[in-house]
Amino acid sequence: MESLKQRRTIRKYQPEDIPDDLLNELLTASFRASTVGNMQAYSVIVTRDADRKAKLAPAHFHQPMVQAAPVILTFCIDLHRFSKWCECRKAEPGYNNFEWFVTGAIDALLVAQTFCVAAEERGLGICYLGTTTYNPQQIIDVLELPDLVFPITTVTVGWPDEHPAQVDRLPLEAVVHAETYHDYTPADIDRLYAYKESLPENKQFILENGKETLAQVFTDVRYTKKDSEAMSESLWKAMKKQGF
Amino acid sequence: MESLKQRRTIRKYQPEDIPDDLLNELLTASFRASTVGNMQAYSVIVTRDADRKAKLAPAHFHQPMVQAAPVILTFCIDLHRFSKWCECRKAEPGYNNFEWFVTGAIDALLVAQTFCVAAEERGLGICYLGTTTYNPQQIIDVLELPDLVFPITTVTVGWPDEHPAQVDRLPLEAVVHAETYHDYTPADIDRLYAYKESLPENKQFILENGKETLAQVFTDVRYTKKDSEAMSESLWKAMKKQGF
Repeated sequence: MESLKQRRTIRKYQPEDIPDDLLNELLTASFRASTVGNMQAYSVIVTRDADRKAKLAPAHFHQPMVQAAPVILTFCIDLHRFSKWCECRKAEPGYNNFEWFVTGAIDALLVAQTFCVAAEERGLGICYLGTTTYNPQQIIDVLELPDLVFPITTVTVGWPDEHPAQVDRLPLEAVVHAETYHDYTPADIDRLYAYKESLPENKQFILENGKETLAQVFTDVRYTKKDSEAMSESLWKAMKKQGF
Repeated sequence: MESLKQRRTIRKYQPEDIPDDLLNELLTASFRASTVGNMQAYSVIVTRDADRKAKLAPAHFHQPMVQAAPVILTFCIDLHRFSKWCECRKAEPGYNNFEWFVTGAIDALLVAQTFCVAAEERGLGICYLGTTTYNPQQIIDVLELPDLVFPITTVTVGWPDEHPAQVDRLPLEAVVHAETYHDYTPADIDRLYAYKESLPENKQFILENGKETLAQVFTDVRYTKKDSEAMSESLWKAMKKQGF
Protein backbone atom coordinates (compact mmCIF):
# COMPACT_ATOMS: atom_id res chain seq x y z
CA MET A 1 0.00 0.00 0.00
CA GLU A 2 3.00 2.33 0.52
CA SER A 3 3.56 2.37 -3.24
CA LEU A 4 -0.08 3.44 -3.71
CA LYS A 5 0.17 6.20 -1.14
CA GLN A 6 3.39 7.55 -2.63
CA ARG A 7 2.43 7.32 -6.28
CA ARG A 8 2.65 10.12 -8.82
CA THR A 9 1.99 10.17 -12.53
CA ILE A 10 5.24 9.93 -14.56
CA ARG A 11 5.46 11.73 -17.90
CA LYS A 12 9.23 11.50 -18.52
CA TYR A 13 10.85 8.13 -19.13
CA GLN A 14 14.38 6.76 -19.41
CA PRO A 15 15.19 5.35 -22.86
CA GLU A 16 15.41 1.75 -21.56
CA ASP A 17 12.85 -0.69 -22.86
CA ILE A 18 10.52 -2.87 -20.79
CA PRO A 19 11.38 -6.57 -21.26
CA ASP A 20 8.58 -8.71 -22.68
CA ASP A 21 8.77 -11.06 -19.69
CA LEU A 22 8.12 -8.26 -17.23
CA LEU A 23 5.33 -6.76 -19.34
CA ASN A 24 3.64 -10.14 -19.69
CA GLU A 25 3.96 -10.85 -15.97
CA LEU A 26 2.27 -7.52 -15.18
CA LEU A 27 -0.46 -8.10 -17.75
CA THR A 28 -1.10 -11.63 -16.46
CA ALA A 29 -1.45 -10.28 -12.91
CA SER A 30 -3.83 -7.55 -14.15
CA PHE A 31 -6.13 -10.16 -15.71
CA ARG A 32 -6.86 -11.45 -12.18
CA ALA A 33 -9.03 -8.33 -11.76
CA SER A 34 -12.76 -9.00 -11.37
CA THR A 35 -14.68 -9.40 -14.62
CA VAL A 36 -18.42 -9.73 -15.22
CA GLY A 37 -19.40 -13.39 -15.56
CA ASN A 38 -15.67 -14.19 -16.10
CA MET A 39 -16.22 -13.06 -19.69
CA GLN A 40 -13.10 -10.86 -19.82
CA ALA A 41 -14.79 -8.31 -22.06
CA TYR A 42 -11.52 -6.50 -22.85
CA SER A 43 -8.42 -6.59 -25.01
CA VAL A 44 -5.10 -4.80 -24.61
CA ILE A 45 -3.17 -3.47 -27.59
CA VAL A 46 0.58 -3.12 -26.99
CA THR A 47 2.35 -0.44 -29.04
CA ARG A 48 6.15 -0.60 -29.14
CA ASP A 49 6.75 0.33 -32.78
CA ALA A 50 7.92 3.94 -33.26
CA ASP A 51 5.94 4.42 -36.48
CA ARG A 52 2.73 3.32 -34.85
CA LYS A 53 3.38 5.58 -31.85
CA ALA A 54 3.75 8.44 -34.34
CA LYS A 55 0.40 7.51 -35.85
CA LEU A 56 -1.26 7.41 -32.41
CA ALA A 57 0.24 10.75 -31.36
CA PRO A 58 -2.28 13.06 -33.10
CA ALA A 59 -5.21 11.25 -31.42
CA HIS A 60 -3.56 12.13 -28.10
CA PHE A 61 -3.00 15.80 -29.04
CA HIS A 62 0.72 15.05 -29.51
CA GLN A 63 1.35 14.66 -25.80
CA PRO A 64 5.10 13.83 -25.76
CA MET A 65 4.67 10.66 -23.62
CA VAL A 66 3.14 8.82 -26.57
CA GLN A 67 6.36 8.87 -28.55
CA ALA A 68 8.78 8.94 -25.61
CA ALA A 69 7.47 5.97 -23.58
CA PRO A 70 8.80 2.52 -24.53
CA VAL A 71 5.34 0.97 -24.26
CA ILE A 72 1.85 2.31 -24.92
CA LEU A 73 -1.09 0.19 -23.78
CA THR A 74 -4.54 0.83 -25.22
CA PHE A 75 -7.17 -0.84 -23.04
CA CYS A 76 -10.25 -1.72 -25.06
CA ILE A 77 -13.78 -2.82 -24.39
CA ASP A 78 -14.00 -6.11 -26.34
CA LEU A 79 -17.26 -7.94 -26.99
CA HIS A 80 -15.96 -9.12 -30.34
CA ARG A 81 -13.97 -12.11 -29.08
CA PHE A 82 -16.78 -13.34 -26.83
CA SER A 83 -19.34 -12.92 -29.62
CA LYS A 84 -17.09 -14.82 -32.01
CA TRP A 85 -16.86 -17.66 -29.49
CA CYS A 86 -20.67 -17.69 -29.27
CA GLU A 87 -20.98 -17.82 -33.05
CA CYS A 88 -18.56 -20.78 -33.19
CA ARG A 89 -20.68 -22.56 -30.54
CA LYS A 90 -24.22 -22.35 -31.96
CA ALA A 91 -25.08 -19.48 -29.60
CA GLU A 92 -26.55 -16.12 -30.62
CA PRO A 93 -24.72 -13.27 -28.88
CA GLY A 94 -26.60 -10.13 -27.80
CA TYR A 95 -23.78 -7.85 -26.66
CA ASN A 96 -24.04 -5.10 -29.27
CA ASN A 97 -25.74 -2.58 -27.01
CA PHE A 98 -25.13 0.22 -24.50
CA GLU A 99 -25.28 -2.03 -21.42
CA TRP A 100 -22.36 -4.06 -22.73
CA PHE A 101 -20.43 -0.99 -23.80
CA VAL A 102 -20.55 0.13 -20.15
CA THR A 103 -19.95 -3.36 -18.74
CA GLY A 104 -16.96 -3.84 -21.05
CA ALA A 105 -15.64 -0.43 -19.99
CA ILE A 106 -15.84 -1.48 -16.33
CA ASP A 107 -13.97 -4.73 -17.09
CA ALA A 108 -11.28 -2.95 -19.11
CA LEU A 109 -10.73 -0.19 -16.55
CA LEU A 110 -10.34 -2.59 -13.62
CA VAL A 111 -7.65 -4.36 -15.64
CA ALA A 112 -5.95 -1.08 -16.60
CA GLN A 113 -5.73 0.08 -13.01
CA THR A 114 -4.55 -3.31 -11.75
CA PHE A 115 -1.80 -3.20 -14.36
CA CYS A 116 -0.79 0.29 -13.23
CA VAL A 117 -0.65 -0.63 -9.55
CA ALA A 118 1.48 -3.71 -10.34
CA ALA A 119 3.77 -1.74 -12.68
CA GLU A 120 4.34 1.00 -10.10
CA GLU A 121 5.13 -1.59 -7.45
CA ARG A 122 7.93 -2.78 -9.78
CA GLY A 123 9.31 0.75 -10.13
CA LEU A 124 7.76 1.62 -13.47
CA GLY A 125 5.98 4.93 -14.03
CA ILE A 126 2.66 5.36 -15.81
CA CYS A 127 0.50 8.10 -17.26
CA TYR A 128 -3.18 7.76 -18.24
CA LEU A 129 -4.25 9.51 -21.43
CA GLY A 130 -7.78 10.88 -21.05
CA THR A 131 -7.58 11.85 -24.71
CA THR A 132 -8.53 8.26 -25.63
CA THR A 133 -12.24 9.08 -25.51
CA TYR A 134 -11.77 12.44 -27.27
CA ASN A 135 -10.66 10.99 -30.59
CA PRO A 136 -11.63 7.32 -30.44
CA GLN A 137 -12.13 6.95 -34.19
CA GLN A 138 -8.50 7.82 -34.97
CA ILE A 139 -7.32 5.22 -32.45
CA ILE A 140 -9.75 2.63 -33.82
CA ASP A 141 -8.28 3.18 -37.29
CA VAL A 142 -4.61 3.08 -36.24
CA LEU A 143 -5.04 -0.06 -34.10
CA GLU A 144 -7.41 -1.69 -36.62
CA LEU A 145 -10.10 -2.43 -34.05
CA PRO A 146 -13.03 -4.49 -35.40
CA ASP A 147 -16.72 -4.23 -34.50
CA LEU A 148 -17.53 -4.37 -30.77
CA VAL A 149 -14.00 -3.33 -29.80
CA PHE A 150 -13.56 0.19 -28.42
CA PRO A 151 -10.57 2.04 -26.87
CA ILE A 152 -11.56 3.25 -23.41
CA THR A 153 -8.21 4.35 -21.95
CA THR A 154 -4.51 4.47 -22.80
CA VAL A 155 -1.54 4.16 -20.47
CA THR A 156 2.04 5.13 -21.29
CA VAL A 157 4.60 3.05 -19.38
CA GLY A 158 8.34 3.35 -18.79
CA TRP A 159 11.15 3.71 -16.28
CA PRO A 160 10.77 7.07 -14.51
CA ASP A 161 13.10 9.89 -15.47
CA GLU A 162 11.55 12.44 -13.12
CA HIS A 163 10.28 12.59 -9.53
CA PRO A 164 7.52 15.20 -9.52
CA ALA A 165 5.85 16.44 -6.34
CA GLN A 166 2.62 14.68 -5.42
CA VAL A 167 -0.41 16.68 -6.54
CA ASP A 168 -3.14 17.70 -4.13
CA ARG A 169 -6.39 15.84 -3.55
CA LEU A 170 -9.64 17.02 -2.01
CA PRO A 171 -10.12 16.12 1.67
CA LEU A 172 -11.75 12.74 2.33
CA GLU A 173 -14.99 14.35 3.50
CA ALA A 174 -15.39 15.99 0.08
CA VAL A 175 -15.62 12.63 -1.65
CA VAL A 176 -17.03 10.13 0.86
CA HIS A 177 -20.69 10.14 1.86
CA ALA A 178 -22.19 8.16 4.75
CA GLU A 179 -25.41 6.32 3.82
CA THR A 180 -26.79 8.99 1.45
CA TYR A 181 -25.31 11.73 -0.70
CA HIS A 182 -24.81 14.87 1.34
CA ASP A 183 -25.15 17.86 -0.94
CA TYR A 184 -22.73 20.77 -0.63
CA THR A 185 -23.58 24.23 0.65
CA PRO A 186 -21.54 27.18 -0.67
CA ALA A 187 -19.75 27.16 2.71
CA ASP A 188 -18.86 23.47 2.21
CA ILE A 189 -17.47 24.28 -1.23
CA ASP A 190 -15.37 27.12 0.21
CA ARG A 191 -13.94 24.85 2.90
CA LEU A 192 -13.35 21.78 0.72
CA TYR A 193 -11.69 23.68 -2.14
CA ALA A 194 -9.72 26.10 0.09
CA TYR A 195 -6.49 24.12 0.06
CA LYS A 196 -6.54 23.61 -3.72
CA GLU A 197 -7.25 27.29 -4.27
CA SER A 198 -4.44 28.30 -1.91
CA LEU A 199 -1.71 26.50 -3.87
CA PRO A 200 0.80 28.85 -5.55
CA GLU A 201 0.77 26.77 -8.79
CA ASN A 202 -2.99 27.19 -9.04
CA LYS A 203 -2.76 30.94 -8.41
CA GLN A 204 -0.13 31.07 -11.15
CA PHE A 205 -2.48 29.09 -13.42
CA ILE A 206 -5.19 31.76 -12.98
CA LEU A 207 -2.73 34.55 -13.80
CA GLU A 208 -1.29 32.82 -16.86
CA ASN A 209 -4.75 32.29 -18.28
CA GLY A 210 -5.94 35.80 -17.45
CA LYS A 211 -8.88 34.50 -15.41
CA GLU A 212 -10.53 35.54 -12.18
CA THR A 213 -10.95 32.11 -10.55
CA LEU A 214 -9.38 28.65 -10.86
CA ALA A 215 -12.75 27.18 -11.84
CA GLN A 216 -12.82 29.53 -14.85
CA VAL A 217 -9.53 28.07 -16.05
CA PHE A 218 -11.34 24.72 -16.25
CA THR A 219 -14.59 25.93 -17.78
CA ASP A 220 -13.16 28.56 -20.17
CA VAL A 221 -9.79 27.05 -21.14
CA ARG A 222 -9.12 23.41 -20.24
CA TYR A 223 -12.50 21.70 -20.50
CA THR A 224 -15.02 23.93 -22.23
CA LYS A 225 -18.68 23.12 -22.72
CA LYS A 226 -18.25 23.52 -26.48
CA ASP A 227 -15.37 21.03 -26.69
CA SER A 228 -17.13 18.54 -24.41
CA GLU A 229 -20.24 18.63 -26.54
CA ALA A 230 -18.27 18.07 -29.74
CA MET A 231 -16.39 15.20 -28.07
CA SER A 232 -19.64 13.68 -26.78
CA GLU A 233 -20.87 13.59 -30.34
CA SER A 234 -17.72 12.00 -31.78
CA LEU A 235 -17.58 9.50 -28.91
CA TRP A 236 -21.21 8.57 -29.50
CA LYS A 237 -20.70 8.27 -33.26
CA ALA A 238 -17.61 6.07 -32.84
CA MET A 239 -19.48 3.87 -30.35
CA LYS A 240 -22.33 3.39 -32.83
CA LYS A 241 -19.91 2.79 -35.70
CA GLN A 242 -18.25 0.01 -33.67
CA GLY A 243 -21.65 -1.64 -33.40
CA PHE A 244 -22.78 -0.84 -29.86
CA MET B 1 2.03 -8.19 -6.56
CA GLU B 2 1.70 -11.60 -4.86
CA SER B 3 -1.63 -10.50 -3.39
CA LEU B 4 -2.82 -9.57 -6.92
CA LYS B 5 -1.73 -12.88 -8.39
CA GLN B 6 -3.41 -14.86 -5.62
CA ARG B 7 -6.64 -12.91 -5.45
CA ARG B 8 -10.13 -14.37 -5.62
CA THR B 9 -13.51 -12.74 -5.22
CA ILE B 10 -14.97 -13.22 -1.73
CA ARG B 11 -18.72 -13.57 -1.28
CA LYS B 12 -18.88 -14.84 2.32
CA TYR B 13 -17.79 -12.60 5.17
CA GLN B 14 -17.13 -12.95 8.88
CA PRO B 15 -19.50 -10.90 11.05
CA GLU B 16 -16.74 -8.52 12.24
CA ASP B 17 -17.00 -4.92 11.20
CA ILE B 18 -14.37 -2.87 9.37
CA PRO B 19 -13.06 -0.08 11.63
CA ASP B 20 -13.59 3.46 10.32
CA ASP B 21 -9.86 4.17 10.55
CA LEU B 22 -8.98 1.28 8.28
CA LEU B 23 -11.75 2.08 5.80
CA ASN B 24 -10.69 5.72 5.65
CA GLU B 25 -7.02 4.78 5.20
CA LEU B 26 -7.95 2.53 2.26
CA LEU B 27 -10.21 5.19 0.72
CA THR B 28 -7.53 7.86 1.11
CA ALA B 29 -5.00 5.61 -0.64
CA SER B 30 -7.50 4.91 -3.43
CA PHE B 31 -7.90 8.64 -4.10
CA ARG B 32 -4.25 8.71 -5.23
CA ALA B 33 -5.44 6.98 -8.43
CA SER B 34 -5.10 9.05 -11.59
CA THR B 35 -7.97 11.45 -12.30
CA VAL B 36 -8.66 13.60 -15.36
CA GLY B 37 -7.41 17.14 -14.78
CA ASN B 38 -7.22 16.35 -11.04
CA MET B 39 -10.97 16.99 -10.99
CA GLN B 40 -11.83 13.85 -8.98
CA ALA B 41 -15.09 13.35 -10.84
CA TYR B 42 -16.34 10.72 -8.39
CA SER B 43 -17.97 10.19 -5.01
CA VAL B 44 -18.14 7.10 -2.82
CA ILE B 45 -21.25 6.26 -0.80
CA VAL B 46 -20.58 4.07 2.25
CA THR B 47 -23.46 1.86 3.38
CA ARG B 48 -23.18 0.32 6.86
CA ASP B 49 -26.78 0.64 8.00
CA ALA B 50 -28.72 -2.66 7.84
CA ASP B 51 -31.96 -0.97 6.76
CA ARG B 52 -30.29 0.76 3.87
CA LYS B 53 -28.58 -2.48 2.82
CA ALA B 54 -32.02 -4.06 2.76
CA LYS B 55 -33.24 -1.24 0.52
CA LEU B 56 -30.27 -1.69 -1.84
CA ALA B 57 -30.70 -5.48 -2.01
CA PRO B 58 -33.48 -5.60 -4.66
CA ALA B 59 -31.42 -3.43 -7.04
CA HIS B 60 -28.73 -6.09 -6.77
CA PHE B 61 -31.12 -9.00 -7.38
CA HIS B 62 -30.93 -9.88 -3.65
CA GLN B 63 -27.39 -11.21 -3.93
CA PRO B 64 -26.68 -12.21 -0.30
CA MET B 65 -23.41 -10.24 -0.08
CA VAL B 66 -25.33 -6.97 0.00
CA GLN B 67 -26.87 -7.72 3.38
CA ALA B 68 -24.08 -9.93 4.74
CA ALA B 69 -21.05 -7.69 4.13
CA PRO B 70 -20.25 -5.13 6.84
CA VAL B 71 -19.59 -2.41 4.26
CA ILE B 72 -21.06 -1.69 0.82
CA LEU B 73 -19.34 0.94 -1.30
CA THR B 74 -21.17 2.49 -4.24
CA PHE B 75 -18.69 4.22 -6.54
CA CYS B 76 -20.35 7.06 -8.42
CA ILE B 77 -19.53 9.29 -11.34
CA ASP B 78 -19.81 12.78 -9.82
CA LEU B 79 -19.82 15.97 -11.87
CA HIS B 80 -22.20 17.59 -9.39
CA ARG B 81 -19.57 18.68 -6.85
CA PHE B 82 -17.24 20.10 -9.49
CA SER B 83 -20.11 21.93 -11.19
CA LYS B 84 -21.22 23.35 -7.85
CA TRP B 85 -17.68 24.63 -7.27
CA CYS B 86 -17.77 26.28 -10.70
CA GLU B 87 -21.11 27.91 -9.94
CA CYS B 88 -19.73 29.28 -6.66
CA ARG B 89 -16.75 30.71 -8.59
CA LYS B 90 -18.37 32.64 -11.45
CA ALA B 91 -17.63 29.83 -13.89
CA GLU B 92 -20.15 28.12 -16.17
CA PRO B 93 -19.74 24.32 -16.05
CA GLY B 94 -20.33 22.21 -19.18
CA TYR B 95 -20.10 18.70 -17.82
CA ASN B 96 -23.68 17.51 -18.37
CA ASN B 97 -22.92 15.39 -21.42
CA PHE B 98 -21.89 11.91 -22.56
CA GLU B 99 -18.15 12.68 -22.67
CA TRP B 100 -18.18 13.51 -18.98
CA PHE B 101 -20.35 10.54 -18.10
CA VAL B 102 -17.61 8.33 -19.58
CA THR B 103 -14.76 10.40 -18.14
CA GLY B 104 -16.36 10.31 -14.69
CA ALA B 105 -16.82 6.55 -15.05
CA ILE B 106 -13.11 6.13 -15.80
CA ASP B 107 -12.19 8.23 -12.76
CA ALA B 108 -14.58 6.33 -10.47
CA LEU B 109 -13.48 2.89 -11.67
CA LEU B 110 -9.76 3.58 -11.21
CA VAL B 111 -10.56 4.56 -7.63
CA ALA B 112 -12.75 1.49 -7.08
CA GLN B 113 -10.05 -0.88 -8.25
CA THR B 114 -7.31 0.89 -6.29
CA PHE B 115 -9.49 0.54 -3.20
CA CYS B 116 -9.95 -3.18 -3.87
CA VAL B 117 -6.24 -3.84 -4.38
CA ALA B 118 -5.40 -2.00 -1.15
CA ALA B 119 -8.18 -3.76 0.77
CA GLU B 120 -7.06 -7.20 -0.40
CA GLU B 121 -3.48 -6.42 0.56
CA ARG B 122 -4.81 -5.85 4.10
CA GLY B 123 -6.58 -9.20 4.12
CA LEU B 124 -10.08 -7.99 3.31
CA GLY B 125 -12.21 -9.70 0.67
CA ILE B 126 -14.23 -7.89 -2.00
CA CYS B 127 -16.92 -8.62 -4.55
CA TYR B 128 -17.93 -6.35 -7.43
CA LEU B 129 -21.66 -6.12 -8.19
CA GLY B 130 -22.20 -5.79 -11.93
CA THR B 131 -25.89 -5.33 -11.14
CA THR B 132 -25.17 -1.65 -10.43
CA THR B 133 -25.74 -0.69 -14.07
CA TYR B 134 -28.76 -2.99 -14.41
CA ASN B 135 -30.98 -1.09 -12.01
CA PRO B 136 -29.28 2.28 -11.58
CA GLN B 137 -32.50 4.20 -10.88
CA GLN B 138 -33.29 2.15 -7.76
CA ILE B 139 -29.79 2.81 -6.42
CA ILE B 140 -30.05 6.52 -7.26
CA ASP B 141 -33.27 6.69 -5.25
CA VAL B 142 -32.00 4.75 -2.21
CA LEU B 143 -28.73 6.70 -2.00
CA GLU B 144 -30.43 10.04 -2.85
CA LEU B 145 -28.02 10.88 -5.65
CA PRO B 146 -28.55 14.37 -7.15
CA ASP B 147 -28.14 15.47 -10.78
CA LEU B 148 -24.82 14.58 -12.43
CA VAL B 149 -24.15 11.78 -9.93
CA PHE B 150 -24.45 8.21 -11.19
CA PRO B 151 -23.66 4.80 -9.62
CA ILE B 152 -21.19 2.98 -11.86
CA THR B 153 -20.13 0.06 -9.67
CA THR B 154 -20.64 -1.39 -6.21
CA VAL B 155 -18.18 -3.32 -4.06
CA THR B 156 -19.06 -5.40 -1.00
CA VAL B 157 -16.24 -5.56 1.54
CA GLY B 158 -15.54 -7.70 4.61
CA TRP B 159 -13.23 -10.17 6.31
CA PRO B 160 -13.20 -13.40 4.26
CA ASP B 161 -15.14 -16.38 5.55
CA GLU B 162 -14.30 -18.64 2.60
CA HIS B 163 -11.28 -19.52 0.47
CA PRO B 164 -12.65 -20.42 -2.95
CA ALA B 165 -10.51 -21.85 -5.74
CA GLN B 166 -9.15 -19.32 -8.21
CA VAL B 167 -11.27 -19.18 -11.34
CA ASP B 168 -9.81 -19.67 -14.81
CA ARG B 169 -8.72 -16.91 -17.15
CA LEU B 170 -8.13 -16.99 -20.90
CA PRO B 171 -4.49 -17.41 -21.98
CA LEU B 172 -2.52 -14.17 -22.35
CA GLU B 173 -2.45 -14.45 -26.15
CA ALA B 174 -6.27 -14.36 -26.20
CA VAL B 175 -6.34 -10.87 -24.71
CA VAL B 176 -3.09 -9.13 -25.70
CA HIS B 177 -2.49 -7.86 -29.24
CA ALA B 178 0.85 -6.65 -30.61
CA GLU B 179 0.59 -3.37 -32.56
CA THR B 180 -2.81 -4.05 -34.14
CA TYR B 181 -5.86 -6.15 -33.27
CA HIS B 182 -5.40 -9.70 -34.51
CA ASP B 183 -8.78 -11.14 -35.32
CA TYR B 184 -9.62 -14.71 -34.32
CA THR B 185 -10.10 -17.62 -36.70
CA PRO B 186 -12.44 -20.45 -35.61
CA ALA B 187 -9.26 -22.47 -34.91
CA ASP B 188 -7.99 -19.68 -32.61
CA ILE B 189 -11.32 -19.69 -30.78
CA ASP B 190 -11.12 -23.48 -30.33
CA ARG B 191 -7.59 -23.25 -28.92
CA LEU B 192 -8.14 -20.21 -26.69
CA TYR B 193 -11.39 -21.45 -25.16
CA ALA B 194 -10.33 -25.12 -24.88
CA TYR B 195 -9.22 -24.94 -21.25
CA LYS B 196 -12.36 -23.10 -20.12
CA GLU B 197 -14.54 -25.60 -21.96
CA SER B 198 -12.67 -28.55 -20.45
CA LEU B 199 -13.40 -27.57 -16.84
CA PRO B 200 -15.76 -29.98 -15.03
CA GLU B 201 -17.70 -27.09 -13.43
CA ASN B 202 -18.42 -25.66 -16.87
CA LYS B 203 -19.52 -29.05 -18.21
CA GLN B 204 -21.81 -29.29 -15.18
CA PHE B 205 -23.12 -25.80 -15.94
CA ILE B 206 -24.15 -26.94 -19.45
CA LEU B 207 -25.94 -30.01 -18.09
CA GLU B 208 -27.76 -28.12 -15.35
CA ASN B 209 -29.07 -25.61 -17.87
CA GLY B 210 -29.99 -28.24 -20.43
CA LYS B 211 -27.84 -26.63 -23.12
CA GLU B 212 -25.56 -27.91 -25.83
CA THR B 213 -22.60 -25.54 -25.37
CA LEU B 214 -21.20 -23.30 -22.62
CA ALA B 215 -21.68 -20.25 -24.83
CA GLN B 216 -25.43 -21.04 -24.96
CA VAL B 217 -25.58 -20.85 -21.16
CA PHE B 218 -24.40 -17.25 -21.50
CA THR B 219 -26.58 -16.22 -24.43
CA ASP B 220 -29.76 -18.12 -23.48
CA VAL B 221 -29.68 -18.05 -19.67
CA ARG B 222 -27.21 -15.72 -17.95
CA TYR B 223 -26.94 -12.71 -20.27
CA THR B 224 -29.66 -12.77 -22.88
CA LYS B 225 -30.02 -10.28 -25.71
CA LYS B 226 -33.53 -9.40 -24.49
CA ASP B 227 -32.36 -8.60 -20.95
CA SER B 228 -29.36 -6.62 -22.21
CA GLU B 229 -31.55 -4.51 -24.45
CA ALA B 230 -33.99 -3.78 -21.63
CA MET B 231 -31.06 -2.88 -19.34
CA SER B 232 -29.50 -0.67 -22.02
CA GLU B 233 -32.73 1.27 -22.12
CA SER B 234 -33.05 1.67 -18.35
CA LEU B 235 -29.36 2.60 -18.07
CA TRP B 236 -29.76 5.20 -20.80
CA LYS B 237 -32.94 6.60 -19.24
CA ALA B 238 -31.35 6.86 -15.80
CA MET B 239 -28.29 8.57 -17.32
CA LYS B 240 -30.50 11.13 -19.01
CA LYS B 241 -32.60 11.61 -15.88
CA GLN B 242 -29.42 12.39 -13.90
CA GLY B 243 -28.73 15.17 -16.41
CA PHE B 244 -26.03 13.70 -18.66
